[in-house]
Amino acid sequence: VVFPAGVDEVAGCLRAASEWGVPVVPRGAGTNLSGGSLPIEGCLVVCTSRLDRVLQVDPVGRRAKVQCGVTNEAVQRAARPFGLFFAPDPSSMKVATIGGCLAENAGGPRCAKYGVTLNHVLAAEVVLADGSVVELRGAEDGGLDLLSAFVGSEGTLGIAVTADLRLLPTPRRRRTVVAGFADLSDTMAAASGIVAARVIPAALEFIESGLLGVIAQSSPGVFPAPAAAVLLVEVDGEEGEVEHDADLVARICGEHRALEVRRARDQAEGEALWAARRAGYGYLARVSRSVPTMDVTVPRDRLVEMIQQARELADEHGLDLYAVAHAGDGNLHPAVPFDPADPDSVRRLDDFRWQLQTACLSLGGSITGEHGIGVEKLSGMKLQHSDEVLGGMRALRTSFDPGGLMNPGKVLPAGGGAW
Amino acid sequence: VVFPAGVDEVAGCLRAASEWGVPVVPRGAGTNLSGGSLPIEGCLVVCTSRLDRVLQVDPVGRRAKVQCGVTNEAVQRAARPFGLFFAPDPSSMKVATIGGCLAENAGGPRCAKYGVTLNHVLAAEVVLADGSVVELRGAEDGGLDLLSAFVGSEGTLGIAVTADLRLLPTPRRRRTVVAGFADLSDTMAAASGIVAARVIPAALEFIESGLLGVIAQSSPGVFPAPAAAVLLVEVDGEEGEVEHDADLVARICGEHRALEVRRARDQAEGEALWAARRAGYGYLARVSRSVPTMDVTVPRDRLVEMIQQARELADEHGLDLYAVAHAGDGNLHPAVPFDPADPDSVRRLDDFRWQLQTACLSLGGSITGEHGIGVEKLSGMKLQHSDEVLGGMRALRTSFDPGGLMNPGKVLPAGGGAW
Repeated sequence: VVFPAGVDEVAGCLRAASEWGVPVVPRGAGTNLSGGSLPIEGCLVVCTSRLDRVLQVDPVGRRAKVQCGVTNEAVQRAARPFGLFFAPDPSSMKVATIGGCLAENAGGPRCAKYGVTLNHVLAAEVVLADGSVVELRGAEDGGLDLLSAFVGSEGTLGIAVTADLRLLPTPRRRRTVVAGFADLSDTMAAASGIVAARVIPAALEFIESGLLGVIAQSSPGVFPAPAAAVLLVEVDGEEGEVEHDADLVARICGEHRALEVRRARDQAEGEALWAARRAGYGYLARVSRSVPTMDVTVPRDRLVEMIQQARELADEHGLDLYAVAHAGDGNLHPAVPFDPADPDSVRRLDDFRWQLQTACLSLGGSITGEHGIGVEKLSGMKLQHSDEVLGGMRALRTSFDPGGLMNPGKVLPAGGGAW
Repeated sequence: VVFPAGVDEVAGCLRAASEWGVPVVPRGAGTNLSGGSLPIEGCLVVCTSRLDRVLQVDPVGRRAKVQCGVTNEAVQRAARPFGLFFAPDPSSMKVATIGGCLAENAGGPRCAKYGVTLNHVLAAEVVLADGSVVELRGAEDGGLDLLSAFVGSEGTLGIAVTADLRLLPTPRRRRTVVAGFADLSDTMAAASGIVAARVIPAALEFIESGLLGVIAQSSPGVFPAPAAAVLLVEVDGEEGEVEHDADLVARICGEHRALEVRRARDQAEGEALWAARRAGYGYLARVSRSVPTMDVTVPRDRLVEMIQQARELADEHGLDLYAVAHAGDGNLHPAVPFDPADPDSVRRLDDFRWQLQTACLSLGGSITGEHGIGVEKLSGMKLQHSDEVLGGMRALRTSFDPGGLMNPGKVLPAGGGAW
């Protein structure tokens, strides 16, 4: 494991690895949820944690230049005094690095409104497999769009060392609305009604009963009384617009038979609701041996079916399921505790994972939303994509890294290997 | 020239061309401004104009599935009854095809607020050089992002035949503000002030005196009295927000010594201003032999310098210059009439074009904004990009099209040719 302190050192590591034929596994904070940053046999791990400086914030141009080992949170901190923020907000944002956000094309609750990392990166300085350093800029910069090809490539095309990020004006107001429902279909109908009413919420979270039970234990009294599901909605923007949207959201939830609708009185009460939602996962992690959080996406109008199928599959395999969905874009995250020391538990989890992917594809969805492919979903790739598309991805990868030394066995099988 | 009527026929054309080693030039409506759709010696032109159907509008999922020969305007027409629109708005949108918008990653006045085509395409069915048909979806779909690599590739990676487009809710209100200034720097300071005040205008057009003179002739009385430059600003959104933003825009223009600030009374008066701005270019085209519209981008705070340098260069070469800039993203469009039948006029234009590109790069800019590279800016590519980046683009192109038959000589030199 090497900890290079600058671009030259990253380039030197990759040049040496290339000469010696040693595979390279890039690593930021290691918060990745699909195993993309896991070391492989005989590899060199290149950890970017020392590249941790915000180099510049340009409030007029609304952009920041940062080293890629800096955390997402540090970028937010640097942007805040100028009334700006960086839109991607993965749950791991306190520790996740910008390099990792680029590698995974990270999203988060507010990405349905603001877009994913791809939409907020203007340029990246990247070290390629042979140690050469290239500046990749977007399509507007002329020629083929190597930057967009790079974002989301999970360390298989190179290591980003510096990035120019787009910053957005922080909305003047936010307001959180929470509503509990007795029925999943009513919950989703309310979510669809909010979208159809042309509100674009900053977040539209669908929390099902399993996770609600956990939240009730970890943060008692914060969420509405027992319900089959809860919608946690945040609207942001100008003052008048926000109050208008919050009223509309509350009314639509009421029209869809909400058991209880509560508008946070102020930003602090809103933040308490979000903190409770995040703390639910933390509590779950503390009381379980291991809790993988999965990541499948279906068209928004199939989300209830997806949740129901996920629950049936979990029951079938004797697993517990705790789920939240970003209802705006149909992205479901089932957390499924298991015991990694127990082969039977591992086998049941693997079967569940495979059947979950198959189910989401049969609903017209995708085996990933914002966690990437890594090693977790490698086998699902051949379910999702045609041979031609997989061949195209392989050709793209080879065009950046002819020797196949960058993060081999992630996203695509290592070398020219079969699936 | 072939006019295939469906995906199978496009695939058949490319399969045959591939077998016979015939280069293929894809063509939509031919509105491209950098020559990407111009035929080359001995090529097969594949024109997509018969693929002209909107296949589906899904108002709940806010997306449309269209054949790629359909016009941008037809998509807007199909979306309008649902209160939705497709964000990219190139000036040619009445006739430009969606396939062309994908190939050029088209933008338009409102792209500084809403983003370019890349941000609004969810999937594309693409015929590759060998006639195979692949479905490319975005990064969220898992694996390497071939869709983003394809968008903006100017016909060098394949031909898009079907596209899934993102639609946005039409803003409830728009308001246009126009302000005339005696000084370029004041004009730009006002534009920067608007951005700094955290207004995100739907359009922020900077029109300099040359084009203002033309507009005064083609649409007398619509624009403010003689000025060095005019800002034409459109804000959109919810009612309260729009009035607030329009007030703020007007006040900021006043604070920067505007000679006259006028708020359009209603949407019709706003549209008259935009129609006059577009008609200016039309008038210029009618009274000139040929008017290439160029396309360079600089950081927003260098736009005044860029305009001044463009004017000096035009004077030096005895050329007239009529320019508009999208001030939000520093994208300048000088229109420079010349006489294609006069070798001296052609030489002066070429010299001007080359020096304009050099100047914009020395200001930290890009030789293109939204018109692509095509053949017009092929030689500028080596000014802008390092050999490594150009090599990466060539490798990417080869990975899609090993035989180099798709639109050769556009974006990059044909074959492995030198610059």
